[in-house]
Amino acid sequence: MKIESVDFFYLSMPEVLDIGDGSQDALLVRIRAGGIEGWGECETSPLTSIASYVCPMSHSACKPLKYSMEGRNINSVEDIKSISSAVHENSFDLLQADHTLSGIDIALWDLLGKKLNEPIYKLLGYNKAYPKLPYASQLFGDSPEATFEKAKKATASGFKAVKFGWGPFGKYGLEKDIAHLSAAREGVGPATYLMIDAGTAWNNNVAGAKERLTALKKMNTYWLEEPFSNMELDAYKTLSGSTPEVALAGGEGCNNFIQAKVMIEYAGLKFIQIDAGRIGGISVAKQVVDLAQQSNITYVNHTFTSHLALSASLQPFAGIEKDNISEYPIELKQLAQDISKAKILPDENGYIHVPEQPGLGISVDTEILKKYLVDVEIKINGKQIYYTPDL
Amino acid sequence: MKIESVDFFYLSMPEVLDIGDGSQDALLVRIRAGGIEGWGECETSPLTSIASYVCPMSHSACKPLKYSMEGRNINSVEDIKSISSAVHENSFDLLQADHTLSGIDIALWDLLGKKLNEPIYKLLGYNKAYPKLPYASQLFGDSPEATFEKAKKATASGFKAVKFGWGPFGKYGLEKDIAHLSAAREGVGPATYLMIDAGTAWNNNVAGAKERLTALKKMNTYWLEEPFSNMELDAYKTLSGSTPEVALAGGEGCNNFIQAKVMIEYAGLKFIQIDAGRIGGISVAKQVVDLAQQSNITYVNHTFTSHLALSASLQPFAGIEKDNISEYPIELKQLAQDISKAKILPDENGYIHVPEQPGLGISVDTEILKKYLVDVEIKINGKQIYYTPDL
Repeated sequence: MKIESVDFFYLSMPEVLDIGDGSQDALLVRIRAGGIEGWGECETSPLTSIASYVCPMSHSACKPLKYSMEGRNINSVEDIKSISSAVHENSFDLLQADHTLSGIDIALWDLLGKKLNEPIYKLLGYNKAYPKLPYASQLFGDSPEATFEKAKKATASGFKAVKFGWGPFGKYGLEKDIAHLSAAREGVGPATYLMIDAGTAWNNNVAGAKERLTALKKMNTYWLEEPFSNMELDAYKTLSGSTPEVALAGGEGCNNFIQAKVMIEYAGLKFIQIDAGRIGGISVAKQVVDLAQQSNITYVNHTFTSHLALSASLQPFAGIEKDNISEYPIELKQLAQDISKAKILPDENGYIHVPEQPGLGISVDTEILKKYLVDVEIKINGKQIYYTPDL
Repeated sequence: MKIESVDFFYLSMPEVLDIGDGSQDALLVRIRAGGIEGWGECETSPLTSIASYVCPMSHSACKPLKYSMEGRNINSVEDIKSISSAVHENSFDLLQADHTLSGIDIALWDLLGKKLNEPIYKLLGYNKAYPKLPYASQLFGDSPEATFEKAKKATASGFKAVKFGWGPFGKYGLEKDIAHLSAAREGVGPATYLMIDAGTAWNNNVAGAKERLTALKKMNTYWLEEPFSNMELDAYKTLSGSTPEVALAGGEGCNNFIQAKVMIEYAGLKFIQIDAGRIGGISVAKQVVDLAQQSNITYVNHTFTSHLALSASLQPFAGIEKDNISEYPIELKQLAQDISKAKILPDENGYIHVPEQPGLGISVDTEILKKYLVDVEIKINGKQIYYTPDL
């Protein structure tokens, strides 16, 4: 099938707030070929990624992403790999490329799955998808009391794993942090997995993070996530060898395979967290899954947007039985909820399942999305090079 | 002085060829405050960087760069640091941000230097600028004969150091590579520094690079640059410890300080090569210089565009006497030559000097650049959010 069109749709809530919530806008990618549509979502700045798709060439290693798409066929897994390689080669010096490629790659897998009538995880070589234990992923409350209430609510909703992150944590001293940790543990009860996401609060200051280890251990924290900025290898490694030992998680900031490889090999992580919407799509995420298996590190998806993105993030490690924890956003803005009618919901045992339908198994609900659509027009020397297509 | 305007100018040769020459287009940044103008240049995809400056906010860590610029004052070095920190924090998840920030940061230093009537290197804390030995930086010829001719010509022009890179090297087998290396050495003569840039030809394949060490050593190669992709730490480290020993150089692909730090600490490099137009400007480049000093690694600028960019790349290590090699592009397209009338030319001993005039010491020749100007217009929901200002 020849690729007929690659279309971008920039969607946004009417008001975007200055908070750490990535579900306030979205960039969807629609690829059409042979009468079939594939959809993907980039975790990106939408306008910047659109520009990276249509910009004029700067030199041989700084070409727009469209250069690697035009005239292509999509009939096999090899065709997707070939496009992914081409983008990496042709847009090597275009910094934004990996975020843009992510949605394109996901849409290509969705398209191919629909054509071959298989869920994506099967095309990736897995025979079977194993259930994942979703953790309710949410921000810390503004006060320990608010954290306690959020914790109680998540457990009451049936979640057997809960993560708190960002917000006030790491910002107002040790005592306040301990109060939040105690409130979180008290709220979720003793039997729930509890993860803590420091949101890079200590940059590369090991002492700052180390001070919290005793409290984290006491609260039986399943992992401490991103105490430091992505790639602060020394800090991660030192903390991973400190006592009391608390497992470290990180990697969401990785924008390509090599960065993830470095984090796996040098940071002393127990969990590598990858966002398929940011690292270059399902193809690159699967490479990280394979390396994580060899390295005895647990792979976890990073997902803070729609259920379309959630399906895309689950596919790469769906067939890995032992890596059974998955991030599950529970505070999505209405836009992210409206992207698909179908949702990936926990079953009666509290586990989620990657859709068994072809492709991502999540259809985009285009009608309802029209109200969120942001029209973009780009002209170069008076000539229109981009205009938002019909949704 | 209050910042009055931050303007971007996308310039391009009439025809951009599919070759590894980054001087075919340019993105200049002009910042005005208190009746003074500062100029900078980004090594970037121009349209994509413009979009990253004006795009709507996606969430708290994915804001347009303009968010960190509006209403700012510029009176001191601290003000530049504050803007740089703000961009890193506010545009943390906007992948393109570091390339865009680079030109902004350079323009801010130029502006401040003009206001304080000092060259930038003095504002960076250096008392004195030391001469640098420029190496004629060029692509390999298509054949060993062509490489020989280019080598002869560079030496005849007075260069005491010559680098060949990219082109056919690493692509057509060991024998062809040896022929190019021999031709290069023969052409430049025995007394000239000869550097070889493999242009990441072997990705992460150590064996491929290792095969060339004997020939590289025999040709008295001063360094082997980028045998592998940026951040392929294991491959770099292994090759750095292989015999015969050839000094390794790398780092041009670093887009932020942490990546450069990782390359300095883990890759076994002898030379760290930083492009101030890509890593976040003069501010971040200077951080890398400081770390390189502590780590006993030689800092070298990466520059393949205009003399405005060359001055910006020289400032961060101008005061380091022992780091006395500098990249000097000699195959610039007319556009890059036309950006400034003033040029940084080798003296009678073959050394170059960072300009002693205020700021970058290189004025932009706006009149001649008008013919290269690419008009960009971006509309969001019918409202113009960007239009190329008057040059």
